[in-house]
Amino acid sequence: MSQDFELHPTLAADTFEIGDLPLCRVLLMNDARYPWLILVPRQSESTEVWQLSDEDQQQLLRESNLIAEKLANLLEPDKLNIASIGNKVSQLHLHHIARFEGDDVWPEPVWGRGERLTYPSATRDEVIAAFRQQLADDLI
Amino acid sequence: MSQDFELHPTLAADTFEIGDLPLCRVLLMNDARYPWLILVPRQSESTEVWQLSDEDQQQLLRESNLIAEKLANLLEPDKLNIASIGNKVSQLHLHHIARFEGDDVWPEPVWGRGERLTYPSATRDEVIAAFRQQLADDLI
Repeated sequence: MSQDFELHPTLAADTFEIGDLPLCRVLLMNDARYPWLILVPRQSESTEVWQLSDEDQQQLLRESNLIAEKLANLLEPDKLNIASIGNKVSQLHLHHIARFEGDDVWPEPVWGRGERLTYPSATRDEVIAAFRQQLADDLI
Repeated sequence: MSQDFELHPTLAADTFEIGDLPLCRVLLMNDARYPWLILVPRQSESTEVWQLSDEDQQQLLRESNLIAEKLANLLEPDKLNIASIGNKVSQLHLHHIARFEGDDVWPEPVWGRGERLTYPSATRDEVIAAFRQQLADDLI
């Protein structure tokens, strides 16, 4: 993992930082419509999962599973949407979105649909604190 | 892997079969706008990657990387979009879509946008044959 990791400015602007797992920074998307966490491997070169080293791929899978299981067990969503897209921000990042029947755009994917609903500051602080607590044993 | 695998009828209707890798059925989405392959683990119970056994997750990662590298090396897309969504079809399936700047909905994700363009039969047969050839060493 390189020491010169810099989060893409668009990701930085659109999210709040939850903390760091061994490989990835964990971000909360600033969109109160959906519980939406993003994993960003803390090295700046890769744009695709298969370009990571085998070791980093294994760690990404472990961390993705951790986030998916936390979202599933905490929120009991009807479906998780997990995706590496990156057409606008090529820095490798993996979306994890808890989806519910009847949410704003169900059953369509969320990207680019409807108006983003930013968190009110009090709710934001609560949600960040809740995820930090859930990940307390895993954040470095 | 269970022996009673059945492909979800919606996936069956929307795709052509390329063949089977050790874990997954490889499907070509019947949408000529994008080179779009789908991997479906051949067991019917799981809806999420983290619900697979560790062994199957490792195999899914290998097969996803294989498909991603083939698409990347063959087509040199600007970005790969890889996603497990499944809001409409919960049977676990992993999209792999080669995206190009200037394609029909770039830079938006493709799901549910625009009108699907089904393959003319001659093109369809060529594309299926080309992918089968590319995967000849890997299909079982």
